[in-house]
Amino acid sequence: MISFSVTHTSDKSNARRGVLLTPHGEVQTPAFIPVATQATIKALPTFLLEETTTQMIIANTYHLHLRPGESIIQNHGSIHSFMGWDHPVMTDSGGFQVFSLGFGKDFHSQKMTSQPSYDQVREGAQPKLLTIGEDGVTFTSYIDGKELFLGPQESITIQEQIGADIMFSFDECPPPFADHAYVKTSLQKTHRWAQHSLDARKGTNALYGIIQGGRYKDLREESARYITSLPFDGFGIGGEFGSKKEDMTTMLSSIHPFLPPQKPRHLLGVGHLEDIPLIIKEGVDTFDCIVPTHYARHGYAFTSQGKIDIRKRIHQDSQDPLDPSCSCRVCSHYSTGYIHHLLRSHEIAALSLLTLHNIHYFHSYVADLRTQIEQNKL
Amino acid sequence: MISFSVTHTSDKSNARRGVLLTPHGEVQTPAFIPVATQATIKALPTFLLEETTTQMIIANTYHLHLRPGESIIQNHGSIHSFMGWDHPVMTDSGGFQVFSLGFGKDFHSQKMTSQPSYDQVREGAQPKLLTIGEDGVTFTSYIDGKELFLGPQESITIQEQIGADIMFSFDECPPPFADHAYVKTSLQKTHRWAQHSLDARKGTNALYGIIQGGRYKDLREESARYITSLPFDGFGIGGEFGSKKEDMTTMLSSIHPFLPPQKPRHLLGVGHLEDIPLIIKEGVDTFDCIVPTHYARHGYAFTSQGKIDIRKRIHQDSQDPLDPSCSCRVCSHYSTGYIHHLLRSHEIAALSLLTLHNIHYFHSYVADLRTQIEQNKL
Repeated sequence: MISFSVTHTSDKSNARRGVLLTPHGEVQTPAFIPVATQATIKALPTFLLEETTTQMIIANTYHLHLRPGESIIQNHGSIHSFMGWDHPVMTDSGGFQVFSLGFGKDFHSQKMTSQPSYDQVREGAQPKLLTIGEDGVTFTSYIDGKELFLGPQESITIQEQIGADIMFSFDECPPPFADHAYVKTSLQKTHRWAQHSLDARKGTNALYGIIQGGRYKDLREESARYITSLPFDGFGIGGEFGSKKEDMTTMLSSIHPFLPPQKPRHLLGVGHLEDIPLIIKEGVDTFDCIVPTHYARHGYAFTSQGKIDIRKRIHQDSQDPLDPSCSCRVCSHYSTGYIHHLLRSHEIAALSLLTLHNIHYFHSYVADLRTQIEQNKL
Repeated sequence: MISFSVTHTSDKSNARRGVLLTPHGEVQTPAFIPVATQATIKALPTFLLEETTTQMIIANTYHLHLRPGESIIQNHGSIHSFMGWDHPVMTDSGGFQVFSLGFGKDFHSQKMTSQPSYDQVREGAQPKLLTIGEDGVTFTSYIDGKELFLGPQESITIQEQIGADIMFSFDECPPPFADHAYVKTSLQKTHRWAQHSLDARKGTNALYGIIQGGRYKDLREESARYITSLPFDGFGIGGEFGSKKEDMTTMLSSIHPFLPPQKPRHLLGVGHLEDIPLIIKEGVDTFDCIVPTHYARHGYAFTSQGKIDIRKRIHQDSQDPLDPSCSCRVCSHYSTGYIHHLLRSHEIAALSLLTLHNIHYFHSYVADLRTQIEQNKL
């Protein structure tokens, strides 16, 4: 189980400082949660993760179910000993991956945010690569094409076998531009599955319910009201909020009154650097995002000067660290010119170095916001 | 400069224990020298190199000249500060790469050990992609196709700018099955270039001369006699020795009487695990090889049970370390099953973990041989 206490709320916003206690240690909140999809942060051995000041990671139930399979992880005791990470772990429910891979492949994209032209996605419409039933979703494995089934019962059982400190309820994630009728029907299913997820729980792992509702304020509020009425240990906020940046904060603001203050809130899959102060001001305690690790593997460093493309020729002869104000081992050890050289030379060590720095940078950024909350500056 | 002292010679063979002192620290010999071609061990950030118990690394002059260029490195002070490695560094002369890429491309292979059918490689024959002149070699950059020239003068200047603790003289590396006449002519050039390399030296960096002569005993002995007559700080032994494994030890044995005992000897590019005791017994002090790092990136771990393909299904549920008797961080931290999972999931962290373990394993293996020498057991 977990326990959560809010130690201070800013007098300028809904931003709050807290401490989340899990069986594998505590998390000072607000906290950024790096993504370890396949039980590793991409390009970074987990024994280097502590020095990034990471407190908790989130792994993907869908990927781990497909490979290596939850029984392999359970045979190691739990995901902690499997991946060599003796600190808190969250697992998502697998819903997002099942649906985004399903709908995504139909529309030749896994990120369907470009055009709101999906009028195929209506009430009753079914994506081609998966079948959504009453009890869950039938889909094919991207590894071997095998037909698989995932529902709330299966998701919770898998997450318990993985041994997550915090699990998420199984939800349907409608595509971003699904219409009101589609999302309304989908939401009813997500709400039934929330109760089924609670019913399926056998162990003491914490379980967060997920608030859905897409870009529709009425549905978001309905979902917040219903999900928070169930005995979850915390609440996830999932899905898309609309096409504009400010839609997210507007939506977070509108559901805020329904969220019980004593329980932790996790925003799923959000965390561009510029978003972080905004979501924290709306009372979000934890949030996960692939941004720092994804950009690292594409040669970008996050710095106090912005997001920098280290492959550019301008960095060739730079003897400065990636960020002079950064205290990570990469910045104290290597020049930007050296990392540029490694990138140009196709050396994968470059990706490890940028990943370590970027995660450290995100955590430092959030640590500074924690201080600002304590000082009522946010 | 360097200094070298032999602290013990086995009474069972020519194996010797020694200490090599360089401006960046000492090397207990015999020692395995990992290859850092482009100023990094592939797949391993240099800040993890110390914990593999690496004492010295070897970088490639040819690659570093092409990218990032020696001036970039010199602007950092030396390769040590450039790559964040404050320990000894060797650089090869660039000769091997120039020639192997040149001849190799002619014969559609960079490793021409399969068939002795290269009667095209005779006295006076020229590879197509490079032109060997009196003062050096004209070749094209594999990066941008630019025509470049490398000779003893250029090689030594570049190596001094890189700031190696130990440099190598520029030599011609004839292809493995070049005939006696070709190798004899080539050797005369290598010997002239050895003197030119000494003449070109301006700084205090140590310089090793390279003994060539291919698979011909008379030429190897002639080369050993001549090269050791020049005032080098140590001696490299380069090139191919023949098609059979035992040809190498036979040849090392035949040149041994010509090598001055007070100077260090480096065997270039040799170091399969089974070769290591054999070459050490012939009085080799240091040797470099890509074997542990190359196999790591192909999913293999070196262990006391042999070289193991960790991708194989048999390892899927293994909770044992790669090698129960290994003290490296990978073996104390991760199961074989976890590394198998990372390899199967195409996670590059797997390559870092296997690289760290394999290098550590090679060093432990050689450390044990050092003890055996001290105890007159080798």
